Amino acid sequence: MREFDLLRHIYTQNPTLPGRVTIPPGDDMGAVRLAGGGEVLVTVDQVADGVHFDLRTTPLEKIARKAITRNLSDVAAMAAAPVGAVVAACLPRGFSEADAEKLSDMMRQTAARYDCPLFGGDVSVWDHPMILTVTVLAEARGVDPILRRGAKVGDAVCVTGRLGGSLEDVNGYTHHLDFEPRLSLARRLASDPATRPNCMIDLSDGLARDLGHLCRAASVSAVIEADRLPISAGGEQASRRDGRPAWMHAVGDGEDYELCFTIDADRAARLPREINGVPVTVIGRVVAGGGAVVSLVKPGGETVDLVGLGWEHHGK
Amino acid sequence: MREFDLLRHIYTQNPTLPGRVTIPPGDDMGAVRLAGGGEVLVTVDQVADGVHFDLRTTPLEKIARKAITRNLSDVAAMAAAPVGAVVAACLPRGFSEADAEKLSDMMRQTAARYDCPLFGGDVSVWDHPMILTVTVLAEARGVDPILRRGAKVGDAVCVTGRLGGSLEDVNGYTHHLDFEPRLSLARRLASDPATRPNCMIDLSDGLARDLGHLCRAASVSAVIEADRLPISAGGEQASRRDGRPAWMHAVGDGEDYELCFTIDADRAARLPREINGVPVTVIGRVVAGGGAVVSLVKPGGETVDLVGLGWEHHGK
Repeated sequence: MREFDLLRHIYTQNPTLPGRVTIPPGDDMGAVRLAGGGEVLVTVDQVADGVHFDLRTTPLEKIARKAITRNLSDVAAMAAAPVGAVVAACLPRGFSEADAEKLSDMMRQTAARYDCPLFGGDVSVWDHPMILTVTVLAEARGVDPILRRGAKVGDAVCVTGRLGGSLEDVNGYTHHLDFEPRLSLARRLASDPATRPNCMIDLSDGLARDLGHLCRAASVSAVIEADRLPISAGGEQASRRDGRPAWMHAVGDGEDYELCFTIDADRAARLPREINGVPVTVIGRVVAGGGAVVSLVKPGGETVDLVGLGWEHHGK
Repeated sequence: MREFDLLRHIYTQNPTLPGRVTIPPGDDMGAVRLAGGGEVLVTVDQVADGVHFDLRTTPLEKIARKAITRNLSDVAAMAAAPVGAVVAACLPRGFSEADAEKLSDMMRQTAARYDCPLFGGDVSVWDHPMILTVTVLAEARGVDPILRRGAKVGDAVCVTGRLGGSLEDVNGYTHHLDFEPRLSLARRLASDPATRPNCMIDLSDGLARDLGHLCRAASVSAVIEADRLPISAGGEQASRRDGRPAWMHAVGDGEDYELCFTIDADRAARLPREINGVPVTVIGRVVAGGGAVVSLVKPGGETVDLVGLGWEHHGK
């Protein structure tokens, strides 16, 4: 089975949800309203040995860090503020007491650093690989959440940071483990009407695929330009290693954990080039067409359909 | 490593949590206060193939049901009201599309039946057994949560329902899959000052062990009487099968998903014998002694220490 087909089936049930659910399945976080007042946003994500890290080679502190920051990237995608987190850990039998405590301490410390205290959890021991499931709660705290839906024809398409090669080890920095979730950048963009995105998503499955989600949610398409893509050091390194152009890594590689958003073109022209040292780059525009086609203008001027190039199923 | 040792390590860090955390790790649910108003309780629990069910023999609808109701039993233990749930599913490669949709539909329907809409989640596919991690949010909704801490010397110890043999198939009813979480019963007890428990826990690891948690939280001990234990049909059947007395199954078997609570003795005397068909039974009393010793008076009158009998490490 394919994850996306199951998710599509799940989304068809959204109309049956009670009014209390203010953001149904299909966005970076869901949300519910409490009867006692307040609204809470929630995301859940899992990291598994052999899929998202390798227990034999990845330091425990980086596994712990990633388990938390992956979820915080979802919080950033809504421009929300973290409230707290709970963790369910399935540990392999034979995992030592000392390692379990280290893993737990590092998750707690990472979460605390982002003002997202760990306040509950569950521990199981089993005969299979480690899996850590983290649920993060967040709240709007004065900034309306930004949804995946909202792109308009004519919008500029923007990304934060630099893309590609997140699995590359660049002088000890490995982006998929060491990335910084864009929480404060997202809050800053979203809280100022002059810079507030119309829609936003975090890049976990690769730009082509995730921008496709923004397009599908608004029944539009998008064109991006290879020459404008900000390439990370990892993307450059991956390109040197495999000989593929760097832009291919920028659009196809997963786990960038940067933000992709669209914004009215006149506002995009006035966006700061960077915020606290993080580049904010216009990479293309939203165009008409309900097929959610993400096209790319290659350096030579030729336009190609990225889905047609086979990027639809890259990423996790 | 042993789960409980890790949990104990985690609880030692509770004093470092910010004031926003109103119920720290160590109870059936944790809780945080939102800056925007409101307080939300959260529990997370996981069911894994080979540990909590057997994918080859357990019907998918019962797996789905249990994944949800196990968490709702934690909600009941706090006398809270469910708000919604998110699910992270790790499915084995080769699991069919149709089965994945069925599993998802049954989880959604079970959750909806308890007014706990599924409003988010994550799906992964991997090469290992299925694991479903469910996070449930709840709120007080007018009834202060009941904690594990609060037992007082002289309190009566009570349980709901009947205990033991939850893995037994009794004419097609298998308690650990088919049990009813005691949500409404807990709300009814907790909302009336005349019947409000002083502390409460749900029975997942077996009565001896879980009552031990209530004792430890209040630095007290407890004595229960074998003759007063309500034995389930599963407990009787297990006893016939293995020749051990039924009370042994009632105190040692896990996954009862009933509630155990303590309440002032004078109030206990006025408790209804049953609520909506579910028995509420006084089975013993809280006594002084900080060792959290759970003792049992055997049918012949002899008193034994249940931890000494080896029940401490039964259950999951």
